[in-house]
Amino acid sequence: MRQPDANKESKRLSALEAVKHVKSGMAVGLGTGSTAALAIEELGRLQNTGELSCDYCATSYQSMQLARQAGLRVFPVESFESLDVSIDGADEVDPALNLIKGGGAAHTLEKIVHSLSSHFVCVVDGSKLVSTLGERTAVPLEILPQAINVVQHELERLGAREVSLRMALRKDGPVITDHGNFVLDVRFDSFHPEGMEKELNSISGVVENGIFARCRPALVIVGESAGVRVLNP
Amino acid sequence: MRQPDANKESKRLSALEAVKHVKSGMAVGLGTGSTAALAIEELGRLQNTGELSCDYCATSYQSMQLARQAGLRVFPVESFESLDVSIDGADEVDPALNLIKGGGAAHTLEKIVHSLSSHFVCVVDGSKLVSTLGERTAVPLEILPQAINVVQHELERLGAREVSLRMALRKDGPVITDHGNFVLDVRFDSFHPEGMEKELNSISGVVENGIFARCRPALVIVGESAGVRVLNP
Repeated sequence: MRQPDANKESKRLSALEAVKHVKSGMAVGLGTGSTAALAIEELGRLQNTGELSCDYCATSYQSMQLARQAGLRVFPVESFESLDVSIDGADEVDPALNLIKGGGAAHTLEKIVHSLSSHFVCVVDGSKLVSTLGERTAVPLEILPQAINVVQHELERLGAREVSLRMALRKDGPVITDHGNFVLDVRFDSFHPEGMEKELNSISGVVENGIFARCRPALVIVGESAGVRVLNP
Repeated sequence: MRQPDANKESKRLSALEAVKHVKSGMAVGLGTGSTAALAIEELGRLQNTGELSCDYCATSYQSMQLARQAGLRVFPVESFESLDVSIDGADEVDPALNLIKGGGAAHTLEKIVHSLSSHFVCVVDGSKLVSTLGERTAVPLEILPQAINVVQHELERLGAREVSLRMALRKDGPVITDHGNFVLDVRFDSFHPEGMEKELNSISGVVENGIFARCRPALVIVGESAGVRVLNP
């Protein structure tokens, strides 16, 4: 789903700007994906030079590994009552700062972490801005494998145009998430972000969907060739 | 949560009546719990005498084991495009036939199975009838263990009066579901069943809740000392 090296410099500018929101002593949530990885790298640098000392939790096995390698102290998500700040990328951002996430299949834990966070900072390059959510990206759903048929029937009822079970590379059969579940990528002709987020989670067997409308970022930092631009709600 | 031997004769009458809805050739979903177990026993008897030949799926490891022991052919839930009938108990039934389920921590797969079923037959004894849902039973939520703090905060926001993590017996620490998750038992002063079912599933980290308002039974068979009584919506 992601192109890891596309717009790397724009992503880096955005990640560096986001890190400015982190102060020593904070509890910090770390996102998943290529832009979040650049923020983790910078946080590690500041931790190692002694400029910053924080406690961290991660939104995926991958971001936990990156953070540990960078020298950050990573604790389990469930050990935090709340987080002061969290930093994460997105696959699409609309003008109201609704997001689609889940290209990396980590959206369930990402939503848990950002719901715990007082200040969710979203970091993207300009290619992620859209006028209407869903115009490029499918909406990912994490589902219990046993529920695949009932979820497909319900998605038809909700007007889904295309539903595909995300298939793995370097493993036969479907992608399996960090929680042991499947991912369905779903395209709709159009939808109301907050309404659809709720509808999708009401389907039996849907663990979480990739629409972030109820849990929007406090700001979006857009990396561009000329520098960064900040979008507020 | 359950009293396995309370009202056993009433439960048996209700289970026998429910089995009359099963005809040869049907795809049948099997519930979990003491009343569903009596239906499984009777379906096994009819299968073994040759009076009935069906394909089955189960809503828990326990009901799969019971069904196999009874001689039924049990297939994985995900192998069925739809089910003709499903039979299951409930912890509470209100006058509109909204249910609370999940005393046995199997409500997630139960909801998947009954959502696939054209004809969900609910079997209870009279002690399960209530005038208002939640008046005796807490609402069980299956949650991802990592989400425990964020779910508790959101439940406070929704006005929960009491939230308890269900603790195991014969195992230290919390009950772990068949999907590897935790169960929170939540009490509210009052709630609108369909609205609350949707709200609870919108909380990040809630896999499924035990309110069955969107997926109500086609009928409820109530076993009583004098016989059975059928409630229609």
